[in-house]
Amino acid sequence: MKLLLAPDSFKDCLSAMDVCQYLTEGIKRIDPNAEITSIPVADGGEGFADTMLTALGGEKIDCPVSNPLGREIQASYGILADQQTAVIEMAAASGIELLRPSERNPLVTSTFGTGQLMRDAMERGCRKLIIGIGGSATNDGGTGMAKALGYRFLDKHDQEIGSGGGNLNRLNRIDKSSVFPLLKKTEIQTACDVNNPLTGKQGASAVYGPQKGASPDMVELLDRNLEHLARVIKTDLKTDVLKISGGGAAGGLGAGLVAFANAKLQAGFDIVKEQTGLEEAVRRADIIFTGEGKMDHQTKQGKTPWGVAQLAKKYHKPCIGIAGFLGEGYHELYQEGFTSLFALPNGPLSLEESLKQAPSLLADTAEQIFRIIRMTKHE
Amino acid sequence: MKLLLAPDSFKDCLSAMDVCQYLTEGIKRIDPNAEITSIPVADGGEGFADTMLTALGGEKIDCPVSNPLGREIQASYGILADQQTAVIEMAAASGIELLRPSERNPLVTSTFGTGQLMRDAMERGCRKLIIGIGGSATNDGGTGMAKALGYRFLDKHDQEIGSGGGNLNRLNRIDKSSVFPLLKKTEIQTACDVNNPLTGKQGASAVYGPQKGASPDMVELLDRNLEHLARVIKTDLKTDVLKISGGGAAGGLGAGLVAFANAKLQAGFDIVKEQTGLEEAVRRADIIFTGEGKMDHQTKQGKTPWGVAQLAKKYHKPCIGIAGFLGEGYHELYQEGFTSLFALPNGPLSLEESLKQAPSLLADTAEQIFRIIRMTKHE
Repeated sequence: MKLLLAPDSFKDCLSAMDVCQYLTEGIKRIDPNAEITSIPVADGGEGFADTMLTALGGEKIDCPVSNPLGREIQASYGILADQQTAVIEMAAASGIELLRPSERNPLVTSTFGTGQLMRDAMERGCRKLIIGIGGSATNDGGTGMAKALGYRFLDKHDQEIGSGGGNLNRLNRIDKSSVFPLLKKTEIQTACDVNNPLTGKQGASAVYGPQKGASPDMVELLDRNLEHLARVIKTDLKTDVLKISGGGAAGGLGAGLVAFANAKLQAGFDIVKEQTGLEEAVRRADIIFTGEGKMDHQTKQGKTPWGVAQLAKKYHKPCIGIAGFLGEGYHELYQEGFTSLFALPNGPLSLEESLKQAPSLLADTAEQIFRIIRMTKHE
Repeated sequence: MKLLLAPDSFKDCLSAMDVCQYLTEGIKRIDPNAEITSIPVADGGEGFADTMLTALGGEKIDCPVSNPLGREIQASYGILADQQTAVIEMAAASGIELLRPSERNPLVTSTFGTGQLMRDAMERGCRKLIIGIGGSATNDGGTGMAKALGYRFLDKHDQEIGSGGGNLNRLNRIDKSSVFPLLKKTEIQTACDVNNPLTGKQGASAVYGPQKGASPDMVELLDRNLEHLARVIKTDLKTDVLKISGGGAAGGLGAGLVAFANAKLQAGFDIVKEQTGLEEAVRRADIIFTGEGKMDHQTKQGKTPWGVAQLAKKYHKPCIGIAGFLGEGYHELYQEGFTSLFALPNGPLSLEESLKQAPSLLADTAEQIFRIIRMTKHE
C-alpha cells in the first residue's frame, strides 16, 4: 500500500517534518514495509525551507544577520540542488520567536535581517528566491529588508530615518540609487498565506499588530505610518501597494517585497505544491494523510490540509485528516475531500499536556487508524 | 455488513444501552442500512436488569423498599419473559447513588432493601433470581438482606442487633427458624465482578469501605465485625464464607448471599454471555464494537470489553474498542483480541467536559471509524 503523508505543522508544537516522522512511526508499528512518501507541507512559515530542501534536495546556508532589534544572530536558509534557487523564511531573521515577549515592539522591530539573507543568496549566485513570510515580529512595511538591499529612506532633511514601523511618519522620499544590482536580475516569489491588505481594519497593523506587542494606540499609529509609506512608494517607485491582496502579510513585508523587489505574491500552498510535485504524489498514493494543529470549519478557507484534501478529491483518493483539536463545524470538512478525521487526545487532557504528548499521540493515532485499514484488508 | 455493539457502561456517564444508542447514531450517519445488533453488556452493576430485559424480554416491576438508611423508596427489578426468572440490581435498593455523599456511612447502611426485592420476586412466583451486586452503599455482610428474608440476628440477650456493619460485633447467634419458606426452593445466581474475599487487606472493608464513607478507624472496625460475622455463620449455619472468592463483593453481600441464600457467585460477564447469546452474536457478526469509560492494562484483568474481545478472538472477528480514556498500557490490549482502540475526546478537554459531551463524542467516534471501514470497502 502506498501512503502519502502531507501534513502542515502543528503550531506551537511540531514542524510538518516532525509530524511526518511520528505518523510514520505509528504506521510502521503495524506494517514495517509500508511504502510511505512524506511531503511536509509547511507553506511559508516555520519549516518551509526544510520542506523544500527535503523535497528537492539542497543545502542549508548559515548567515549572520541582524535580528528584529538589530542584535547579530546566526540565521540559515536553503539553497536548492539547482544552485539557482534559495528558500528563505523571513521568520529565521525577523521572526517573533526570536524575541522574548517583553522585547516585542513593532514600533522599532525591523526586517533588515531578511534583506541580509536575500542579499547573501544573490551573492552566492541564486537568481530565484522563494521567501516564506509567516511569523514576523515586525510592522515596517519591508523597509528594513529594502535597506539591507541598498534602498535609503530619507526624511525631509535627507537624513536616514530610524528603523521600525514607528518612524515611517518621518519618511519624505525613497532613494534607490544604491540598490544592490543583482536584485533586478533576480526572480522573487513570496509564499504568503494571508490575504490582508497593507492598511485598514483588515490590514497588517490592526489584525497582526496586537500579537506583536502593539497597544491600540500603537496600532493606530502603525496603520497611519504604513499608509504614509504607501503614498511615498506610489510617488517615488510608481507602485500602488495599498490594495494588494497579501500586502499586509508579515507587517507589510508582502507589500514591501512587491514595491522594492518586484516580487510575486503567491499562496504558499501553491508554491509548495508546484515545487514538491505534491499533485503527482497524490495521484500515485493509495491513501493520503494530512493534518494541522487545529481543524475546524475555517480549515476549508484555504488552509493546507484543505488544499491536500482537494487534490485527493480530484483524484478520488481517500484522505484522512489528523488534528490536535477538531473544532467547531469540523463535520463540514467531510464534504471537502476528507474521508475521515481524527483528534489526538487519548483521554481528558489539558492543552499543555496535549502539546507535550503530541509526538506519542500522533504515532498512536496513526497506528489506530492503520489497524482499521489493515483489518478491512485482511477480512 | 453485520455489526455487533457490545459495550459496558461508561461509569458515571452513560449506561451500556446509551452507549449502544450513540454508537448506532454515528454509524447510521454513514450507512443508514447497516445491520446492527446491540447487546449492552452491563454485567452486574447499573443497567444489568435493562440489559437482560432487552436481550430476553420481560417486564419491570416496581416495588417499595427501604433504602440503605431505612427510608422508603420505589425501586424496580425485572421479571424475564419466562415469568420464572427475576433480575435484581442490588444497587436499585441498596446502592451508593441513593445517598448524598454526606449520608454515606457503612457503619449503619443496610442491604435490607435488596432482601425485600428478592422476597417480592419470590412472592410473584420467580424461582430463579439473578442478582447483580455492584455499587453498594453497605458493609453489612448481607445481614440486612437476610433479615428481610426472615433471618434474625441476635445479641447475647437474644435481642435483635441494629442494622449495619457497625453493629455486627454484638452478634451472638443467628436464628433461622422464621426464614421465608420459598427461599429454599429458589435458585440464586449472583453476578459479581470482583474477586475480593470477605475480610483482610483485600477484603470488603479495606478495599471498598473508604469509597462508601469509612475512615481508617471505621475500616478496621468493619473488617473485625465481618470476621466476627463469618465466625458466627460458621458455627450456626455450617458455612465457611471467609475464603470465598467474591465474598467481599458489595460490602460482604457476596458472602451473605452464599451463607443465607445458598447463592452461586459467578462472573457477571459469564451470566450475561450465557443469557444473552453473546457468543452466537459474535460468531455471526462481521465487526464487533465494545468499550468502557476507561480502558488500560487493567482491562485485561477480566473486564467486560476484554471478555468481548476474547470471544472475538476465538472466532477471528475484528473487535474495536472505544473508551473515554485510553490509559496506561492500553497498547497491551492489542494482544488480547482488540483490533484497534479509540478514545473519545476531539481535542484538549477536561474530564467534566468529556463526560458532558460523551453522547456526541461517541457518535462522532463511531462515524470516524466507520468512515475508514467504508473507505477500504469501496477501494
